[in-house]
Formats: sequence, structure tokens, C-alpha cells
Amino acid sequence: MKTTFNFSKDIELAFKNDPPGQWLSSLPPGCLRLSSGYPDPKFVPSEDIKLAVTRLLNEEKDLPLHYMGSPRILQLKKFLQDRMAQRGVTVTDEEVLVTSGACQAIDLIARILLDEEAVVAIESPTYMEALEIFQNYTEQYITIPIDEEGMQTELLAEMLANRKEKSLSIPRLLYTIPTYQNPTGTTLSFSRRQQLLKLAEQYDFLIIEDDAYGELGFHDRPQLLKAMDTNNRVVYVGSLSKVVAPGMRIGWVVADQQLVDPLNWFKKDLTHPFDQATMASFLEAIDFDEHLTSLIEVYKSKCNVMLTALKEFLPPTVSWFVPKGGYFVWVNIPGVDTSTMLSQAFEAGVSYVPGKYFFLDQEKGLEYLRLSFSYATEEDIVHGVKLLAEIVAVTINAPECEE
Amino acid sequence: MKTTFNFSKDIELAFKNDPPGQWLSSLPPGCLRLSSGYPDPKFVPSEDIKLAVTRLLNEEKDLPLHYMGSPRILQLKKFLQDRMAQRGVTVTDEEVLVTSGACQAIDLIARILLDEEAVVAIESPTYMEALEIFQNYTEQYITIPIDEEGMQTELLAEMLANRKEKSLSIPRLLYTIPTYQNPTGTTLSFSRRQQLLKLAEQYDFLIIEDDAYGELGFHDRPQLLKAMDTNNRVVYVGSLSKVVAPGMRIGWVVADQQLVDPLNWFKKDLTHPFDQATMASFLEAIDFDEHLTSLIEVYKSKCNVMLTALKEFLPPTVSWFVPKGGYFVWVNIPGVDTSTMLSQAFEAGVSYVPGKYFFLDQEKGLEYLRLSFSYATEEDIVHGVKLLAEIVAVTINAPECEE
Repeated sequence: MKTTFNFSKDIELAFKNDPPGQWLSSLPPGCLRLSSGYPDPKFVPSEDIKLAVTRLLNEEKDLPLHYMGSPRILQLKKFLQDRMAQRGVTVTDEEVLVTSGACQAIDLIARILLDEEAVVAIESPTYMEALEIFQNYTEQYITIPIDEEGMQTELLAEMLANRKEKSLSIPRLLYTIPTYQNPTGTTLSFSRRQQLLKLAEQYDFLIIEDDAYGELGFHDRPQLLKAMDTNNRVVYVGSLSKVVAPGMRIGWVVADQQLVDPLNWFKKDLTHPFDQATMASFLEAIDFDEHLTSLIEVYKSKCNVMLTALKEFLPPTVSWFVPKGGYFVWVNIPGVDTSTMLSQAFEAGVSYVPGKYFFLDQEKGLEYLRLSFSYATEEDIVHGVKLLAEIVAVTINAPECEE
Repeated sequence: MKTTFNFSKDIELAFKNDPPGQWLSSLPPGCLRLSSGYPDPKFVPSEDIKLAVTRLLNEEKDLPLHYMGSPRILQLKKFLQDRMAQRGVTVTDEEVLVTSGACQAIDLIARILLDEEAVVAIESPTYMEALEIFQNYTEQYITIPIDEEGMQTELLAEMLANRKEKSLSIPRLLYTIPTYQNPTGTTLSFSRRQQLLKLAEQYDFLIIEDDAYGELGFHDRPQLLKAMDTNNRVVYVGSLSKVVAPGMRIGWVVADQQLVDPLNWFKKDLTHPFDQATMASFLEAIDFDEHLTSLIEVYKSKCNVMLTALKEFLPPTVSWFVPKGGYFVWVNIPGVDTSTMLSQAFEAGVSYVPGKYFFLDQEKGLEYLRLSFSYATEEDIVHGVKLLAEIVAVTINAPECEE
């Protein structure tokens, strides 16, 4: 008799969703990658990391290969604390947890705070992996549209007032990427940051500030929500994936110790000494501000190249937000279903991420797509946008076929 | 107003327990470490890993530093599949998931299978981290005592029959370390393996086979439960922590695809390319069987040194199981509370893990302790056991003080 498996009732909800990673297409060979939210390969410091890991193992021998014991594990945490302090957030050891990337951080936070009864407030559109995470915990959401100044907090205020009046549940948690958002590239304005924090206080909810791109501002860096947070409403999530190397899986959480302590109950991959000590060894050998300055110059230039190409090649009905930092340009193409158009793009040799994956209600994202300027070369960006423009032109002009 | 935090009702259960890691004492400097279940530092291949990571980054450049793309990620999986095949378990790609260590594997399995209503069957004593994991999900256990032939499956049979008769819930999951168990060092006999699989079929439960130590047999290697499993009842968990390096966090699950697929829903640390590709690069450059042979010789010798010292120095009332492999000797000291004795051991300069941490009902473990022969040198093992014997002598002869 074939064994049938009985799953936990606690996760039935999760299985209602598509399996994670649906947005992750396998790209045809040679495809110009405007889909990948990867750092620029030329600026992923593989040579410096080779030196760092060599120095680490020469100096520490087996220490970073055990469960614990490498002094550089603490050194990494210290680096992150110093970095936070420079950005206006002074934190004790107990208020920081180093995680295996930002996704794990978001998941651990969701794990300790959410259950089926919880309502989560999310930006619309938002980071697809965060959506996948929250959908493991609850089906209840409120979605706040984004404009060029980020999440429309005045709409959030209305929604909350409305829910209160109707005695509907107030969100327990709000998830935002306030700075150089994924996928829109937008940045929450200062006055909206103030309003958001005020609303969190008024309606008693917590805010996850996902700051994966926050160091990559082309002109300046907005004040962190966490730096404006006087009452520990903000759970900050940082990442070295976009500024050093995602393959080393280094993220971190900064929050009230009452929240950080319980995260450890569920972090069962334990500490990753080899990743963490190698990262610490890398960081001790470089000037991080200088490193950031180089990255910012690169991404700023690539972003400009992409924006110029979009203006040159795309028809005037197509629009986008102008990013002030980060990795992405969010493109609106009225009248085009970007998810059906993807196969043509692949055929032509260019990739993007269809907008639908960034929305809870995927229908809302059909006429959008996310372009990344981070990974491809400037030449490939121009070429890729040109190819995209050709496909868009064909798609817009194609007679609609209804079957 | 100070913010008060409202946690998920789904994890209220978890917080009833002590925070994880209570068994992990901070050792006094210079302490002889008979507590650490760490590999022998001289055989943690830091030089080979330095070469491996250098070769990796020379050949693949930035690839292992991105989210994916390193060919060696697949190569590692292939190595693990080949290894399983050598041990009698032929598996497809879809039946293997590489995890960040065995603990994460156990946690992911628990996550998809357990809820508050689930009963879990565990060996008594058992691995303390597994206990911590299961206690995040359920409060319902049946515990099966261990003797020199491992879990007493005949007692399990009685318990199950009894529960069935009384219409009590049957365990959904049984967790076992059948080979060179942590903490007892015992190995489940072949006939008990057969009985266990038969019971799983008869009573419709799944078995987690935690095989962290399975490659480290001093004489031979018993047949895997997974290799005897004709009906996909066994979820195999492997680890490279005890045979290569725990700091690289490489574990894996082998199970029916129907189980492996859902594990991905909750693995939110994503793939660890730097760890995995470095491990693959290390493995491709060595003769793994030769590497294992060296390790086995080392641990066999250290085990003998420990057993000889125990015989020489400990009083005749003290007893232990003779391990046929692995890292541990489980010592019974009648009349002594090993958890209160620990501070004296630390003062004397030797460490162990008090037995209570390996039991759900900690009272049952008071007169036991776990010694590891894996980490300390042979000289330190002898010295450490001698120190321990002195403390035991003092403790046994001390007048009982009741307050």
C-alpha cells in the first residue's frame, strides 16, 4: 500500500498558495538579464573574498569551521552595530540578530507575530518573496498602493479609520521597503515616514522596515524609520546581499530585545560560522564607505542608461518611476499583459519579471514589469531595452485574439 | 507608553519551554572539553577547505557569491545522492533537499508534519536540539527507553498496542538516531530495525532517521533504516557536520517527493551557495572514503582511550554503554546529580553535558552525563576523566545536605 502523508493542520493555509519561486523563470541561454535582482558581477568582490577567507583560515584555522568559537562571528555583529549607529540607530548586542539573509529575518518575524487571525498590511506592489512568506501565515491583508513617494500613507490612514469604525481587525504588522523599494524603486517621503510611525502608535501595530537597498542611494540616504522610531515599533531588517554578496546569506534584525529573543526559538539553521566569519574578514580589510561609493556610482550610471534607453525606445504610453537608488525600474505598459509577453521576450533574448508576482491580487499587476539595472552591463541594458521595446511595439499593435 | 508585543497564538506553546540552548554552558578558560560534540580540530580540514575555496573562486569567480548559478551547488547534491546510493538508497533529484544542517532538516520536517494535536515518539534519552525543535510544535510525546541495543522497540510495540486499545492518539512521527546515538552511543540492532519499520507500517507513522554519526562506525556500518524502507515511511536526515565541518552547515533530507516538495515552502534562508559550493569543491578534491577511514581510526582510538580511563578511574558503581561508533559515551553515576556537580567539574577544569538535557522529563537524567571523545586530545581525555573521577568520588562520599 502506498503511504499517504498527513500534513500539519497549521500549514494547510500555506499549501493553498502556489509553490514558492513561481516568478523564477529558467532563462534561455544568452538571455540579457534584466530580471535578476543580483548585484553587478564585476562588483561582487570574489578576489577580496578569496583573500578574506584565506586570511581567516590562516589565522583562525579550524575555528570558523566549528559550530561556534570564531571571534569573527562577534566581529561581524559589531560591524553591523557600528553601521546602524552611523545611520542613527544605537543598539545593544541583545537587540541584534544576525540571520541567514533578509528573507529568513522576515520569516522569523512573521513566525513569532503572525497567525491565521492576524492581518498584515503590505505595499502594493511589494517584494514577491515577502508575499510568499506572509502567505504561509495568514490570508488576511490590507494593501496600500504606492505612488512616486512610496506607500500612500494617507490611504492607509483612511483604511485604518474605516476598519476601526467597522470594528474590523487592525493589522498586527505592516511590511514596507521604504527606501528604493522592490519592485517600484520608490522612496517613502519624510512626511509619510512620520505619518506611518504615528499610525503605528495610534493603531498599535509593528512595522518591518526592509532596508535591503537602503545604502544604495544615488544622491543621499533618507532617514531610517528605525532611526525615527521612539517607541520600538519598528523591526529593522538589513542585508549585505545587495552591497556585498547574496551567496553568503548575511542579513540581520534590529528590534526590541523582547522580539529578538524569541526569534532564536525558531532559527534552527543555527549560526553559519563559515559565512559569517568570512564576511567579517572581508569587511575588516576594506573601506566599506569607499566600497559603497563605488557601487553607488556604478548603479547610478546603469540606472541612467536604462532610463535613457526607456525614453528613447519605448512608446510614449509606457511610463515608470524614476528611482533615487537601488536596483529596479518599475514599468507600466498599458494594454499589455506582461506575463503572456514573457515568452516572446525570452525568444528575443531578454528577461524581466512580470508585474503580477508583486501583487497579492495578481490581476492588478498584469500591465507592469520589473526591470533590474543591477546585473546586466550598460551595453546589455541598452540592447535589452531595445529588444523589449520591439516586443512591446508588436504586442501593442497585435490584433486581440479572443478564443 | 512602552510598546507591549503580542505574539502569535501558534507559538504560545513554544514559549512555555526554556529558551533554546540551556544545555550550552560557557566553559571556563582552559577547560578540558569533554562536553563538545565537535569534530576533532586536527581533522577539521581547514587547509583543504582553504584550497577548495580558492579553487572555487578562481574557477567560478562571482558565481558562488550570487543567489544561484554555481554549478557546484548541483555537484554537492550529486555527491550526496551518490553517497546514499553506496549505502543502499537510490534517490532522484526530487527526493533530496540540501539543508543548512541537520537541525534545520528536522525542524522543516516537524514544521510540515506536526501541530498541537500530533504525538511524537522519541527515544529516551535523545538529542537535546531535536527535543527543543519538537517542543516548538507539540506537548504530546511517547518516550521509548534505550538499552545497549538502542530503542526498545518491543516496549514501543506495547505502548502502541496499549494506546490503540485505549483509543489514544498514535504518534504521527517517530524520531530516532539509530546508529551511534546521541547521547548514548548505542546502535539499534537489525531485528529492532525490522520491528520498527513493521510498527511504522502497522500504525501508520513516519520515522525520522537522523544519521549524523552513521558514517563513523568503528567496525562496520549497520544497514540504514532508509535502505530497508520499502514504503517511504522513513525520512532520512544526513549531515556533513560530524565528518567534515559543522561551521559549513550542510545537511540533507531524503524522502518521498511528496514530503520533500513542501519543505521548500518553509526554507526561507534559501540556498547557501558559498557554503555549498565550497563544500562541493572540497569533496571533489579528496577521496572521501579515505577521509572517513582516517576519521574512524582517530575516533576509535580516542573512544578506547576514554573507555580505558573510565574503567581505571571511576568507581565500580559507575557504568556506560560501549559505543560502536560516533562521538559519545553515556555514563550513569548512581546517587549523583550531574547537573549540580557541573560547577565542581568546571572548577576542576573539565566539562560534560548533564544528562537531564537529553530527557523530556529532566528528572530521569539526573544520574547521567554525556562525555564526548571527539574534540579533546587523547591526553586531555585521560586527564579529563581523571578529574571527573575525583569529583565523582568527592560527590559520592559527601554527606547529603538537606535544607
